[in-house]
Amino acid sequence: MSLIVVGSVAYDGVETPYGRVDRMLGGSCTYIALSASYFTKTRIVAVVGEDFDEADRDLLCERGIDLSGLETLPGKTFYWQGVYTNDMNDRTTLRTDLNVFAEFNPKLPEHYRNEPYLLLGNIQPTLQSSVRNQMNCLRFVGGDTMNYWIRDFRQDLLETLKGWDFLLINDSEARMLSGEVNLKRAARAILDMGPSTVVIKRGEYGAILFRRDAMFMVPGYLLEEVYDPTGAGDSFAGGFVGYMAERQLDLRDPNLDFRELGRAVIYGSVMGSFCCEKFGVERFRTLTRSEIDGRFQEFKAATDF
Amino acid sequence: MSLIVVGSVAYDGVETPYGRVDRMLGGSCTYIALSASYFTKTRIVAVVGEDFDEADRDLLCERGIDLSGLETLPGKTFYWQGVYTNDMNDRTTLRTDLNVFAEFNPKLPEHYRNEPYLLLGNIQPTLQSSVRNQMNCLRFVGGDTMNYWIRDFRQDLLETLKGWDFLLINDSEARMLSGEVNLKRAARAILDMGPSTVVIKRGEYGAILFRRDAMFMVPGYLLEEVYDPTGAGDSFAGGFVGYMAERQLDLRDPNLDFRELGRAVIYGSVMGSFCCEKFGVERFRTLTRSEIDGRFQEFKAATDF
Repeated sequence: MSLIVVGSVAYDGVETPYGRVDRMLGGSCTYIALSASYFTKTRIVAVVGEDFDEADRDLLCERGIDLSGLETLPGKTFYWQGVYTNDMNDRTTLRTDLNVFAEFNPKLPEHYRNEPYLLLGNIQPTLQSSVRNQMNCLRFVGGDTMNYWIRDFRQDLLETLKGWDFLLINDSEARMLSGEVNLKRAARAILDMGPSTVVIKRGEYGAILFRRDAMFMVPGYLLEEVYDPTGAGDSFAGGFVGYMAERQLDLRDPNLDFRELGRAVIYGSVMGSFCCEKFGVERFRTLTRSEIDGRFQEFKAATDF
Repeated sequence: MSLIVVGSVAYDGVETPYGRVDRMLGGSCTYIALSASYFTKTRIVAVVGEDFDEADRDLLCERGIDLSGLETLPGKTFYWQGVYTNDMNDRTTLRTDLNVFAEFNPKLPEHYRNEPYLLLGNIQPTLQSSVRNQMNCLRFVGGDTMNYWIRDFRQDLLETLKGWDFLLINDSEARMLSGEVNLKRAARAILDMGPSTVVIKRGEYGAILFRRDAMFMVPGYLLEEVYDPTGAGDSFAGGFVGYMAERQLDLRDPNLDFRELGRAVIYGSVMGSFCCEKFGVERFRTLTRSEIDGRFQEFKAATDF
């Protein structure tokens, strides 16, 4: 039983107060898959150009990620360039070259289609739906979105959300999607759109999971140095969904143990925090499951009362 | 065994997006004492003018607060006026009339001096020290401060802090006091100044308690409506210290149960959240201990994993 992840594989140029890297492996699918791979078998669907580096492919392979769904098209890989503010709570996009990503039309390999878990990274809502429709026997499906789709593809997004079990979204996007400033009301409005579970990510301030009958809150993990927050939200998603898949959680089961969802949020936070410790995906080169479980226990000790 | 609270008793003029009140009971001592009174016998030291309203005195009396140390001087009560931004994370002071507070020279009634617990609200550091020196057998002492004292009375403040067991401070003030942007480092620097326990308050994002060997984090309680955040930090302080006094915690005891400190932080958060539900001290007119314990259990349910 494995997790299918769909999204972008990209090259990123990133500048933070700690330095600058011109071209490094990135993209939502990359971070989600690397993060989830610590918990469950992960298979990706994405597109890259002919410039995609063998070493980057190797990194994903070494984490046991199935690349059968990674298509190579003539042209260049998606490129994004951005610069973070000094407190790293905000960033400015300097450049977005969609390149081959503009033609992304995800086709799932046959052996992906009977898998039970699907995570749809931040891509156009109709593409998210088309992937979902290629899956035969899902136990859960959910994903991420962003301000651009909320603003300019609202109807498509609302249609897509109807079929999701969970939505991961940051606080400003939750406000934009719901039209509510207050996060509790925003979450309630989003639950009315379809998903039974909404996770609102608040960057360094943690995250909150909402269901109709319960709520789980986690404060942010305090790092001494945040080198690069790129990918932290996607790493959160990978940890959250990876843990749910590892534990074979069924979000539609009325007897679901709510504390398991809390643990999934904690693993999400743990993975997001590790991601920030180095530039880009660097931290995933050395990260071990035992470090991950150690930080999970740290969260336990620092929040138990 | 009771708690002595020193600070300001004031009249506040407050404007928030929910409305405006021209003159209502306020001041650090008021909020701290009202909040702490749900946990322990509380005795205050403060000064008011001849305009201080009998009804306001009654409110404090009804909560069982000892007003023997509330001095009345010729003149008017301290007046503060401010307006909050739309998201209520910031406020602008429009007017500060110190009035009789300018002559505040706290003298402790004889029967206060052998009490074990002292909380020093946000007043001039040398006054805080003078109160501390009037106490005979303290089991713990701590307090609050603000940007003004940190910037313009730094040496006095550092001298005062040396004798404290705990400091309550908000995140921007912690950064200012320590010279460190990162909160973990900021806390470590402040622990080096004297207190064994530092609580960094982050407004709607919760709070973090630091000791040399352990840390406790709590996310903010999600309210659907924040009517007026005035006094929330002081109400937090009252709940935090009130619970420690109720449980007779000894911060100097190496065998102190750290989870008890976590509970004190949770009670602080609970009291801060109730304070915001109505204008000024209004919520304290009807609030009961059973509502407080109910919200404590809500925190438990929403953070347990």
